[in-house]
Order: sequence, then structure tokens, then C-alpha cells
Amino acid sequence: MAVGEDYFPKMYPVPGFKIGVASAGIKSVGKKDLVVMEMIEGSSIAGFFTKNSFCAAPVQLSKKYIYSTKSRYLVTNTGNANAGTGEIGKKNAESVCQALGDIAGVKKEAVLPFSTGVIGEHLPVQKIISALPLAYASLADTGWDDAALSILTTDTRPKGVSTQLKLAGKKVTITGISKGSGMIRPDMATMLAYVATDAVIEEELLKRMLGTVVDCSFNRITIDGDMSTNDCAILVATGASGVNVSELTASDTDKFLSCLKDSFLSLAQQIIRDGEGATKFVSVRVSSGKDIPECLKVAYAVAESPLVKTALFASDPNWGRILAAIGRSGIPNLDVENIEVYLDDVLIAEKGGRAESYSEPLGQAIMNKDSLYINIILNRGDVAETIYTTDLSYDYIKINSEYRS
Amino acid sequence: MAVGEDYFPKMYPVPGFKIGVASAGIKSVGKKDLVVMEMIEGSSIAGFFTKNSFCAAPVQLSKKYIYSTKSRYLVTNTGNANAGTGEIGKKNAESVCQALGDIAGVKKEAVLPFSTGVIGEHLPVQKIISALPLAYASLADTGWDDAALSILTTDTRPKGVSTQLKLAGKKVTITGISKGSGMIRPDMATMLAYVATDAVIEEELLKRMLGTVVDCSFNRITIDGDMSTNDCAILVATGASGVNVSELTASDTDKFLSCLKDSFLSLAQQIIRDGEGATKFVSVRVSSGKDIPECLKVAYAVAESPLVKTALFASDPNWGRILAAIGRSGIPNLDVENIEVYLDDVLIAEKGGRAESYSEPLGQAIMNKDSLYINIILNRGDVAETIYTTDLSYDYIKINSEYRS
Repeated sequence: MAVGEDYFPKMYPVPGFKIGVASAGIKSVGKKDLVVMEMIEGSSIAGFFTKNSFCAAPVQLSKKYIYSTKSRYLVTNTGNANAGTGEIGKKNAESVCQALGDIAGVKKEAVLPFSTGVIGEHLPVQKIISALPLAYASLADTGWDDAALSILTTDTRPKGVSTQLKLAGKKVTITGISKGSGMIRPDMATMLAYVATDAVIEEELLKRMLGTVVDCSFNRITIDGDMSTNDCAILVATGASGVNVSELTASDTDKFLSCLKDSFLSLAQQIIRDGEGATKFVSVRVSSGKDIPECLKVAYAVAESPLVKTALFASDPNWGRILAAIGRSGIPNLDVENIEVYLDDVLIAEKGGRAESYSEPLGQAIMNKDSLYINIILNRGDVAETIYTTDLSYDYIKINSEYRS
Repeated sequence: MAVGEDYFPKMYPVPGFKIGVASAGIKSVGKKDLVVMEMIEGSSIAGFFTKNSFCAAPVQLSKKYIYSTKSRYLVTNTGNANAGTGEIGKKNAESVCQALGDIAGVKKEAVLPFSTGVIGEHLPVQKIISALPLAYASLADTGWDDAALSILTTDTRPKGVSTQLKLAGKKVTITGISKGSGMIRPDMATMLAYVATDAVIEEELLKRMLGTVVDCSFNRITIDGDMSTNDCAILVATGASGVNVSELTASDTDKFLSCLKDSFLSLAQQIIRDGEGATKFVSVRVSSGKDIPECLKVAYAVAESPLVKTALFASDPNWGRILAAIGRSGIPNLDVENIEVYLDDVLIAEKGGRAESYSEPLGQAIMNKDSLYINIILNRGDVAETIYTTDLSYDYIKINSEYRS
């Protein structure tokens, strides 16, 4: 189950970035579950990792390697998260890096490992190492479509984005993929995202850019409030286009950044649309707040309320549950009399109760849509924030009580 | 669905405290949905109310009245929460108090109103006022059993507790009832609790006692993390036994307090056992923590994780999800290598991964039970906290997507 049409874009290759996939037999036999990505020498890379204290072995290793040596390869397996695996897990992740390094002729520190899947089982290292030569041999700049499929776990759809834009008279490409459908919440979750561009961007600038775009994309989504042990978002700039972002006009810089933001937001929203058991795509917008933290507190209280989420699943315009969630969000001195709540553009609640102009059919019409906004106006400041979420359905329970993650 | 045997105790009357019930036709016709409680003159009362900013009209009124005038009556209706009803809601609650005051010959401020049920619809004041004389006429000290049934909403069982103890050579009674099965979390939730004793306890002491016992009972339970707009816990001391708690020996004081704590904890645990869709009763104990807040943070992160809860529903000893929840609880400098996690007395995880001594059948045996402990030892201090919760099942979704609360 997923919300909205199943659209996968045409993926433009990114010069300087190649992808190879293989089947290591971790998932079911014959299913592709191993992805190798190669960046041309001289590429810059930036990474954003889960803040979970129990972060998985590959995350620990990637965090250690990423800025210590120039990264050249990314290796991702699905079917096994190599999380909660202690010292053995770290050694296993290291062995995979070493094996790919040996094949490619680089140090193991130039290989960043990523794993997603079942927690707490040891990584089938030999299976992965045996399949690495095949993945390596298939490296090609056209590998995005295959990779988008190979990194999935409980996802029902591949997730991709690809854009080309003209900067300083030259063509620049941004292409990326992501995976994730549960354990999604701020500060990253069970999600992986890899985005590459052929612009020239030096590492420090790339890190700052990644921080900015993650903050308004992957850090603004929530499915079940759970944060995973394995989340990473990677941004690579191969430089192959020769277009240096630092040397662009202000307007071209804006154009590039806005394109990068849109790409990340699209990948993040595709994760929400494919949320476990999702039947609705819901944007929760909190505006006229005093500051960002209070807008986010209110937005997450509403987006993560099981009662709001089950009402969304039932297409029930139960505004009382929205008010109750706002009320418990822990904002000091919240004057509930001043708050207005809209479903799309229908005012449903104001002055502490149901709006006079509101009638159930108006709310029902919005609730019947598969994409909708919950707009909450606090009327106490000028800050606004939007986050994206789903409903809570029978299928969420089914997926998570039957899948050993 | 509820966890464990359906046991309702023999309810000892509390001298000086009478209860009358009636059917006002708010729920379905003929169902009892109105409860009046009367305290003898000279009784003390203490109340603990929801911290939700959108607290319901009756809660606002009860908070205003409770310590301003000597309370003599409590009036509770189910079927309608009178929440999110703005100014009209307050007037409606006031009208109910006025009507009961007129019948009983007391000021409206001596009547505390309570409502539970659907949010956002106006209170059917006339129905309630018409039924008040009947409820008043049926006042009797034996009304506890009827009241326990009449205050229910989505609950599947009445919840009660009753004890008699000897203090200073005299018999003292503690009897109480509660309701609630969803929207349960700390700082009170969709729950009401009324406990009465015939001990003599002056108001300031009674308030402190209520704070203490709520903190280790109703503030230590969570079903879905949602906090209601209508939660209240009321403790009444009629004084009819003549036993003054302030004049007891230290050992008798301890005995009384411990009995009061047990009564509150029992009412709180009965709510969890009857949690919406609950198939398991789970105690999450976090020990060897640095302080109470960090123990509670870890405990709630685990207890409220939808992934942990769905694993519990599936009776799946998925310790990886427990580790992931601990890891995202936001405790600074948490050394995951030092943490031990037990299911009952089976060590499942240590040193950042699965315990060497652990095997799946050991965990499965515990998971198959309908009551179990998740014991988390942080090994960084000497504080411990326990909270109580349930799993997340299909029935939770069913109840909350089909019931308009």
C-alpha cells in the first residue's frame, strides 16, 4: 500500500559516478541486495548519520572513515542491518570494506559501508564478499534504476529523483535514490539516501549544503516516531561537469541549492508516501509560532498522535483529537483560544472549539482525499514549519508484527 | 480484549460517601451514564488534573471550584467529554453544577463536574439535568459497583479496588474506581479515578498524599502516548471513621500510605490491562540510571515505540527494537556497551548486541506470557523506575478508527 501514483522518474546519469548491483543471497535467492557505488577520484562527499546511541556497526565505521580518507566507494547491503551486533559487527563491516578495497585497489578506509534490514543478526560476510566482484564488474553510470530497487526492505516502491539544470551555461545533473518506510522520524530514521551531482563543490561547502537540505527534508518527516540505528544520507559531488558552485552568480547558486532541496524533499516525501501501511500523505503545517522548536513540537505532537493517525486512517475529521494533541505538546503559555486549525482551507476549530462556519461534510470532503494538509495557526509569532506524515492503519500493525526488523 | 482475569473486588462502603447513578440517555438508551457522588459535610478532597492546554470545560471548572469552596458533590457523565466546546462548554458544565446544587441545597461551587466521551460535541445539558433527581434519589453507600460500570467509555471492564485496614485499633476503609483504556500517558490521560477513605485527613496533607500516590501510579502508565483533555484523579477523606492520619504512629502511617499507594497502583494497572486492544501487560523497568528523568526517558521510549509494541503483539522477542528504542531516547553519553536488557529474568542483550547466553526459545517463552517485564539495566547510577504499558494490536486500530472520541 502506498499513497498516490507510482511514479519513478527517468534517471540521468551523473558523470563521475557509477553503480553496480548484485545478488548476494541475503534476501531471497536471486533478489538483488548488494549495491556498490564508485566516485571518480577528486570527488567530495558529505554524510549525515543517525543520532541513535545504538547506531549500527556500518554507521560507526562510515562516520569514522568518511572524513579521514578520501572516500571512493559506497557499499550497501539490504536484508541485514548489522545493528546490535557488538564487536563482531564492526569486524564484519570492516571485512566488507577491506574486500571491496582489495578488488578496487584502494584502502579499506576509502570504502563506506551501509546496511539495512533485520537488526541483531550477524552480517553474512562471506555471501557479501563472494558477490562483490560481480557488483564491481557491473559498475556503470546507468545503474541508478537497479540500485533504487536493490536497496529496498519493506518498501513497496523504488524512490528516485533526477534533474538537469543549466548553470554558467553548462549542464549540471542531480540524481538520487532513497529507501525507508518505517522507523521514520526526525534526526533520520530507517532510511538511506544517496544523491550525486557532477558539480564541483569542496567538502566543507558540501557538508553545509547537506545539513541545510536534510534539515528541510529527511528531518521533517515522521511515520511512527521510531528512529533507526542505520540511517544515513550521503551527498556526493564528482565535479565532472567542471561547474564550480563557489564561482556561480548568486542567482545560479540559488537555482542549484533550490534544486538540491527539491531533490531531497522529493526523496523524503516518497518515503512518507510509501510509509508502512500508509493510506494518506499528510502535511502538518504549524504557522505563526514563536520559534522553530515550538512549531515542531506542535507539529510532531499532532503527526505522531496515534489517535490523530487512526482518525486519518478512518477518514474521520475528528478535530477534537487534533486539539487534544496540540494541547499536550508541552508549549508553555499556549492560549488555546487563539489557535485556528484548518483541514486544507476549511477552518475546523477556533476559540477552543469547533468553528461556527464548520460542518461535518466540509471536513469529510477533505478527509476523503489521499493527500491533505493539517494547518495549525498559533497566532503568537511569525515562524512556520511543515512536516510530513502518514496515517496509522491495520497494515502498519501487520507489517511490523510479521516482519522481523 | 483485556489482559488477565476479569476480577472485580467486593467493594466496601466508605462511611460518609454515597453514590447514585442514573441513565440520562447520553450513551444508548437505558445505559447508565450519570453518576453523582456525595461527601458528608467536613470531608476533605484533593484533585489531580490533566496538564493538556486544551483541557475540557468540566476540568477547568473543577480546578476553579475544588479549593475555593468545600466540595460536597461530584457529578460525572459519560458519552460526552464536553471538550473543545469553548465558552458554551463552560456554561453547560456550570448549569449541571447549578442544577445539582439546587437539588442538594448547596452552592454550585460545591459541585465538581467531570465528563468523558466524545470530544467536540456540546453537552446534552437538558438530558443530564432531567436525570439528576433520579441519580440523587438513589444515593447510597453501596453504589460503587454501579458507578464503576457507569463511568466506562471504550473500557471493557469495570475497575475497582477496596481494602479495609486496622489503624489505631479502628477499621478504616479505602475504596475506589477508575476508567480509561486509551489516550493514556503520564501527567494523566483519558482517565477518571475516584478514591474515598473514611480516615480523617486535613486538606493540605491529602493533597500531598494524592501527589505522591499519583506519581507512582497514574503517572507511570502509558498506552498510546496520547494525553487526554479530561483526566482527573480525586481523593476524598470523609473522616467518618474518626481515625486521624496525622495522629497515627509512624508504623500505622506507613501502613495507610502503602495501602493508598497500592490502591492507586491497582486502579492504574487495571486501566493498562484493559488498554485499547491490549493483549499484553508489560512492565518496563529501568534501573541503575543516574536520575529519575533519564530512567523515565528510556522507559517511555521503549514503552511508546510502535515497533516494540507491535513486536510485543506478535510475541516476537525482537530485542533489536528494544535496543533501538533505548538508543533514541536522548540520554546524553549513553554507553550502549554497558547496558543489559532482560525479558523477565532472561538476559537478551549486553555489550551492544545479543547476549551470548541467549537463544530464541528462551526469549520466546517469556514473550508468550501475557504479563512480562522488560528490564533495562543502564549500569551508570542507582536510580530505578518502572512504568506499565501494553502492546499495539489490530484491535487498537479498530477501536480508534471506528470510535469517534
